[in-house]
This record gives sequence, C-alpha cells and structure tokens, in this order.
Amino acid sequence: MIPEGFGDLLSEPLIVHMATVRPDGQLQNNPMLFEWDGERFKMSLTKSRQKYRNLLADPRVAISVTDAANPYRYLELRGAIDKIEDDANNDFLNSCAKRYMGVDEYPYDPPGAERIIVSFVPQAASHQGEPN
Amino acid sequence: MIPEGFGDLLSEPLIVHMATVRPDGQLQNNPMLFEWDGERFKMSLTKSRQKYRNLLADPRVAISVTDAANPYRYLELRGAIDKIEDDANNDFLNSCAKRYMGVDEYPYDPPGAERIIVSFVPQAASHQGEPN
Repeated sequence: MIPEGFGDLLSEPLIVHMATVRPDGQLQNNPMLFEWDGERFKMSLTKSRQKYRNLLADPRVAISVTDAANPYRYLELRGAIDKIEDDANNDFLNSCAKRYMGVDEYPYDPPGAERIIVSFVPQAASHQGEPN
Repeated sequence: MIPEGFGDLLSEPLIVHMATVRPDGQLQNNPMLFEWDGERFKMSLTKSRQKYRNLLADPRVAISVTDAANPYRYLELRGAIDKIEDDANNDFLNSCAKRYMGVDEYPYDPPGAERIIVSFVPQAASHQGEPN
C-alpha cells in the first residue's frame, strides 16, 4: 500500500495533518505526531479533544505529510480508524516525545489528560514527487 | 475570524494541508500553496486533479497550517469553497510561484494544465500555541 520510495516519509519524525469529519458536518484538519509500524498508522489523542469525538462518530481519516526538504514531495494515506486503545501509562505518547523532541515526557498535556492510541491500516495512498 | 496573533501563519509562504471529501466517501488531504487576502483564502488547482472533482461534488474544506519554526503552533480554518475562477493566464499560480519559490513560472505543471482559483471565506477557526 505504501508507494515504493516514499517510506522515508513514514519513518522520519514528521508532522502529519489528519483530516476528520465533525458531527456538525464541517471537515477538520489537524497536525499530529505519528508512528508507522509497517502495517498500522498510529497516533496519540486526548479524550477531551474534538478530534476524538469526531472519530467516535465517523472513523474516516486522511493523512497528508510532506518531505521536510521538499514540500512538493508528499504522501497521502486514506482509511478509517479501526482500533482505539488506552495509553494509560503514556508509553506511546512518550515514545513519540522521545522520537520527535528528544525528551522523556510529552510536555504539552494539561494535568489529568487521558491519552489513547488511534490507528488504521491504510486503504489507499497517493503521492507526488520523486521516490527516495 | 482569524485568531489574534496567528495572522503570520497566513502571510508567510507556508504549505497548508487541505482536507476534502471524495465522491467515493473517503476523505482526502493534500499539501497546497495559498494566498490569504484578508477576507478570502485562495488556492490554485488544476482541473484534471481529483481535488477539483471532490470540490465540485462537495465544497467542504478544512485547512491546517503549522508554524515552520514550531509545529506545535498551528492554525486551522474550516469552511466551504464558494468561488471558482479561471486562472487562464496563470497569473495567480505564478504569483504563488514567485512568493513560494522566487521564480516567475510555476515549474511543475504538465503542458496544457488548466488552472483555476478556488477560494472560501473561513466559517470557523481553531488554533494552538502562543500568539505571535
């Protein structure tokens, strides 16, 4: 499913943008940290955020990510969230913090934030630019 | 509608990501060049691309853009494309090419590409991070 020569956009700690649908019918689009394990595309969410409510009501997502050195080279993944897991010890969140920021704990959560892991298997992909 | 202290994300030549809905029901998300004129959010599209077909069938969009120096600072704009104009001389496209790339002509179009300008007035906004 991942186009050949574009896997670097899934292994580097890049910010992706995640499209969802809001219950009011508007589309929503937000920057996200992610991890790709070779099969599933995983993201950390807080239960208090609108993004989470969107996904509970409508699991569709589309992910867009550009090459940090060349924004005209990009990868898009489409699908639907089919797994939601607790991240009770913030293990996943903090592994993202380590990879993205080089710190042991994600620094931006308010006290008491409840973290979950949402993930999906990409159903379609598109890309533009030269393979790596 | 634009949150105070976040206008820099609309005046700098940043890549935004545009969420749309495909006729098959999947969401789509793509990097885009843009221009903000203080009222309307404008983007250049090619008539041959799926993004354009999506917008003809369903005008909803959501735009996400992050601060180049701090991806945890972002702006999101939601709305629906309500104006589609021809860009017959590529004037708008090439003004984007000048602003983003410092060149007089956008270098990536195939011969014969038909350019249009799609735009919307934001109906809702969200943001995160410190105002500038």
